Amino acid sequence: MEGYPYVTQLDVRFRDLDTMGHVNNAVYATYLEQARVAYYDDVLDLGIDELGFVLAHLEADYERPIHHGEEVRVGLRTADMGERSMRTGYRIEADGTLAATAETVQVAVDEDGNPRAVPEDWRSTVERFEGQ
Amino acid sequence: MEGYPYVTQLDVRFRDLDTMGHVNNAVYATYLEQARVAYYDDVLDLGIDELGFVLAHLEADYERPIHHGEEVRVGLRTADMGERSMRTGYRIEADGTLAATAETVQVAVDEDGNPRAVPEDWRSTVERFEGQ
Amino acid sequence: MEGYPYVTQLDVRFRDLDTMGHVNNAVYATYLEQARVAYYDDVLDLGIDELGFVLAHLEADYERPIHHGEEVRVGLRTADMGERSMRTGYRIEADGTLAATAETVQVAVDEDGNPRAVPEDWRSTVERFEGQ
Amino acid sequence: MEGYPYVTQLDVRFRDLDTMGHVNNAVYATYLEQARVAYYDDVLDLGIDELGFVLAHLEADYERPIHHGEEVRVGLRTADMGERSMRTGYRIEADGTLAATAETVQVAVDEDGNPRAVPEDWRSTVERFEGQ
Repeated sequence: MEGYPYVTQLDVRFRDLDTMGHVNNAVYATYLEQARVAYYDDVLDLGIDELGFVLAHLEADYERPIHHGEEVRVGLRTADMGERSMRTGYRIEADGTLAATAETVQVAVDEDGNPRAVPEDWRSTVERFEGQ
Repeated sequence: MEGYPYVTQLDVRFRDLDTMGHVNNAVYATYLEQARVAYYDDVLDLGIDELGFVLAHLEADYERPIHHGEEVRVGLRTADMGERSMRTGYRIEADGTLAATAETVQVAVDEDGNPRAVPEDWRSTVERFEGQ
Repeated sequence: MEGYPYVTQLDVRFRDLDTMGHVNNAVYATYLEQARVAYYDDVLDLGIDELGFVLAHLEADYERPIHHGEEVRVGLRTADMGERSMRTGYRIEADGTLAATAETVQVAVDEDGNPRAVPEDWRSTVERFEGQ
Repeated sequence: MEGYPYVTQLDVRFRDLDTMGHVNNAVYATYLEQARVAYYDDVLDLGIDELGFVLAHLEADYERPIHHGEEVRVGLRTADMGERSMRTGYRIEADGTLAATAETVQVAVDEDGNPRAVPEDWRSTVERFEGQ
């Protein structure tokens, strides 16, 4: 996916749909999370037990409904690496066409959940992976 | 809730929590939806079967985690009524303190899901309800 | 609720519904869980962080669909207290009429998740509460 | 999967987990549903818009927790075809070992949701597919 160095594929579940027969708006946030969790694991080698980041901001633009049976792909890129946070951009495609774009901001936290600087090796690993 | 003419109360479910023991970020979108659905019903007399609006944009700022057992209240106000869309502002409180703020944009659609102008009586009803 | 010494009330969420406009079958399991968590807390003073029981068996008979806007109440009773497990019976009512009955079996576990005997004080507390 | 002529594969989502770090018990019902929906589509050519069956009974035996990152496969077989209902058996495996067994009963319904006899061609198609 052009401009998104990391891509996850997802299956739409019947339970993702609401009464209108489309994927419910809140489920898009779950799709983004799934891409983020996969990225943390694959790129930063951070398991789901290791508290690394907490979500501070989420925004999404819904472009078209997603239907059951469509193949969903979520592209992810690091838009910005701040001192204590990272900003991530997403593109959700269903059957190859744009369904939503989104952005999240995550704050780096230590084991007790307190904000801290993004560890230097995470920063360099992300930059190396994304070729920034 | 100061500045929010409509308020819904919600129970946190165990299923809303994730591995960190907090309400999962995507569930906040469900809380907003629940407030929106209640508002449509109470103020506009629009049932869930009547397609009135589709979500075009969502943004949320997460201020603090929500825990099981906390009492959640969602305040809702109409921030703007456009020609074909409405912008809604939200404040989520848990046990009386700020947990998140959010904003959504909904586009008015007809029975076939096509965009249309916001019906004049919806506009006037909302303005009357919110005292604008 | 006749025969159910513990009762929880729940709100149906729009997200609980599926494309048929009824509460999805899997959500009934969430309703049962919510009643169980409340019971553990109220009767046994067990918080959600304390691993006390794990679910070993679930069965449910769906009697009628639950709709949005209906008031859901879940009645719970301890059907049996075994050496290492407890069997719990449930009745789900929506707007006062039967929507489902269910039964679960939970196995008592220690902090590491290993099966153990049901602690004697839990047993006596449950029996006292339910007047067995 | 020995004895299960139809098999679906599923991804565990982070959102499927609860505070204990395992797939939540209610999500197993969603996994079963996902297998059922896929079966209806693949074998009976029934889309999700066509009301064919409603769930009347569900039971599940939880054998071991499912973790994030495990590959989940759900095996499905028709245990019995009654006059107006079908009984379905399931086996859920995670990374190749048994995680749960389950059974559901579905009642055939017409377009208005009223019970009816299982259509003869559905019956013969299922029997042909499963080699009964």
